[in-house]
Amino acid sequence: MALATNACTPCAACKLLRRRCAQECPFSPYFSSHEPQKFASVHKVFGASNVSKMLMDVPENQRADAVSSLVYEANARIRDPVYGCMGVIYALQQQIRLLQAELS
Amino acid sequence: MALATNACTPCAACKLLRRRCAQECPFSPYFSSHEPQKFASVHKVFGASNVSKMLMDVPENQRADAVSSLVYEANARIRDPVYGCMGVIYALQQQIRLLQAELS
Repeated sequence: MALATNACTPCAACKLLRRRCAQECPFSPYFSSHEPQKFASVHKVFGASNVSKMLMDVPENQRADAVSSLVYEANARIRDPVYGCMGVIYALQQQIRLLQAELS
Repeated sequence: MALATNACTPCAACKLLRRRCAQECPFSPYFSSHEPQKFASVHKVFGASNVSKMLMDVPENQRADAVSSLVYEANARIRDPVYGCMGVIYALQQQIRLLQAELS
């Protein structure tokens, strides 16, 4: 019996990693072939194997949220290789200080 | 001639990866053996090879900052496997909305 695959439309992860996209592929529900950039970003920053491990570590109903936050984090790191998400956090903290000063 | 190493005090990275800590080790300036948890965190979330690549991609005088932000990010992800740094960003954005509402 042939092994079931998503061969007609391999997910973005399997396409980038040049591997068969099996039906139980951990990436395919979250990395559509229509948005290859999302997987490319998390692959560059975290590595495919770490992304897979991190997804398996969270309950299935929270994996889509985990993917969104990983993609956001990876893009922040690619945009700002020194501070990544920390750059966003610093800016928000600064905005809070300004608002608090206005209020006091 | 023996190859120069940091053999007496291998850095936290080389200790965890069980390898010789050469004098040109990319991790040793940033991951002291006295704080093993820092490297353990970035290793778990990003992987040693990605951390090394990300460090090499930034100018030397910014690498200490890059390490701090990577350690922060990794710890946020370990603490909150679904949202990581995004959880912190959501909370700050919420605080900003509350302050803005107070001001208006």
